[in-house]
Amino acid sequence: MGKYYAGIDLGGTKILTGIGDTQGNILARSRVRTEVEKGEEGIIQNIIKSLNRSVEKAAIDFADLSCIGVGSPGPLSISRGVISETSNLPFKEFPLVELLEAEVNKPVLLENDANSAALAEKMFGAGQGVEEMIYITISTGIGGGIISKGEIFHGCCDGAGEIGHMIVNPGGPTCGFNQHRGCLEAMASGTAILREARNLLQQEDFSGFTGFTGEPKDLTGYQVAKLARQGDEKAQEIYEEVGYYLGIGVANLINLFNPELIVFGGGVMKAKELFWDVMRHSIADHAIPAVKNDCQLEESKLGEDVGLVGALAVAINRGK
Amino acid sequence: MGKYYAGIDLGGTKILTGIGDTQGNILARSRVRTEVEKGEEGIIQNIIKSLNRSVEKAAIDFADLSCIGVGSPGPLSISRGVISETSNLPFKEFPLVELLEAEVNKPVLLENDANSAALAEKMFGAGQGVEEMIYITISTGIGGGIISKGEIFHGCCDGAGEIGHMIVNPGGPTCGFNQHRGCLEAMASGTAILREARNLLQQEDFSGFTGFTGEPKDLTGYQVAKLARQGDEKAQEIYEEVGYYLGIGVANLINLFNPELIVFGGGVMKAKELFWDVMRHSIADHAIPAVKNDCQLEESKLGEDVGLVGALAVAINRGK
Repeated sequence: MGKYYAGIDLGGTKILTGIGDTQGNILARSRVRTEVEKGEEGIIQNIIKSLNRSVEKAAIDFADLSCIGVGSPGPLSISRGVISETSNLPFKEFPLVELLEAEVNKPVLLENDANSAALAEKMFGAGQGVEEMIYITISTGIGGGIISKGEIFHGCCDGAGEIGHMIVNPGGPTCGFNQHRGCLEAMASGTAILREARNLLQQEDFSGFTGFTGEPKDLTGYQVAKLARQGDEKAQEIYEEVGYYLGIGVANLINLFNPELIVFGGGVMKAKELFWDVMRHSIADHAIPAVKNDCQLEESKLGEDVGLVGALAVAINRGK
Repeated sequence: MGKYYAGIDLGGTKILTGIGDTQGNILARSRVRTEVEKGEEGIIQNIIKSLNRSVEKAAIDFADLSCIGVGSPGPLSISRGVISETSNLPFKEFPLVELLEAEVNKPVLLENDANSAALAEKMFGAGQGVEEMIYITISTGIGGGIISKGEIFHGCCDGAGEIGHMIVNPGGPTCGFNQHRGCLEAMASGTAILREARNLLQQEDFSGFTGFTGEPKDLTGYQVAKLARQGDEKAQEIYEEVGYYLGIGVANLINLFNPELIVFGGGVMKAKELFWDVMRHSIADHAIPAVKNDCQLEESKLGEDVGLVGALAVAINRGK
């Protein structure tokens, strides 16, 4: 058995690979484009190209690798090593583990990317020493992973933890995935923030955001946060609504899972100060007090590395 | 070790005890009044009285009992054997396990009543052979228990599984417990059905339920179901709303836990035909299709015995 691990963070536009030690430290990393247009075989070759570069940068032998973890968008079947279908990769039933193992001759472990991020925070981030925790990423979408008894909670068929699609506002707007009306992702993701801001700009009786003169399509999430920070009340209200619905979603998680810790990550957390207090109040309004008091809220410690450390964590956890 | 088990279903008005074999069969049972007014010591003595009667009826020796399971309303601390506080028993930090073990000299195992019902369905009811399942009881309130890897999912501090207090309609009516606005219990319990029916009767423009001539306070849940079955459209609409919100709650559970099975129990299930189809449609509208397809919906097999078999299941599971 080698003493190093490889992690692969597989996305629709880029593949990140890294070499890690048993403590989850990234010793070397590499990034290549996914190039989905090259098909399954092309993606496998790009993964291997990136992996070899990482091995080279880390100045280790490929033989020193114990095993390889892959964090991928889901849904997927972990036991079969298959990515079933994802909006980011144009494949159905992509047998990634089989194809990759045939090329590298090392054990490959597939995991949902939000689950592996949760494991990363548990093993090497904000959740060290915690056995019952939940990781939520608030980004373009909202995802999450649940850790119970120190391990990823998978449910019967690797589909558990779809936090973003919990309904928190029945009859509300739809999310991009399966058109779930009023799910958390539709109410509180980066996409939701931008949608609400653009909708406002298209209303005839809206006088505009203070300091923004462009077209609705020119607006970015970053700008909405900036406008809110500069004091625009309408932009602030958008973030307050995010906090309110996040609080409902988090309260539901608390009531159902009784976690010791919930860790928040993702790009929208950069604007944390715009929704955090409202979220905390909403949690207090909607959770059972005793169960809420068991639960701490913390920010991701791994930040933008959480995807890559997550893939490594999956490999390291297997090697334990 | 004895070859029999005792179960105690502790409620605010009555204590049910039973003797069971390893297969969860109830060999004998007894019921006494709880008599909360007699205090902690009085309750312990009533439990022992009921237990002794059950042992006598079963024609076994007390020494043949392996251990004793107690299903109690929560919240409680399983590790400390303490009932923290419950609306049904007027105590705080009631050290039931310690007090009872001192009297009977047998191991006593405390469990939340909804959790023990879930375990009962898993071991001896609709969930036999299933490792990932959820039990929901729809009664005066709504409770539930989650089974994962074949065992009760407790969370960090025995507070998990509060299905009834999941928010499914923010800003909706409050439930009796902690005033959670729009939680599942406030939207879809027996209490919610009766509240909606009485509210209708108090509206000036409501012409009344066909065939009901009493005062709002005279209305019972049983009557609302009967009126709906007889074709009263308004009564039917109340049950349809129950189905809609139950569907949202169940969809959320599916998206979060990816269970193989959800088992439904409780008195409101006697009117199942009035909401079941609407519930199924609502689940389909609100759950991720692939995850929904992993999940079967079934009715409790243990029916009204689920509380007692639950307490027995806790004891038998420990004795495994």
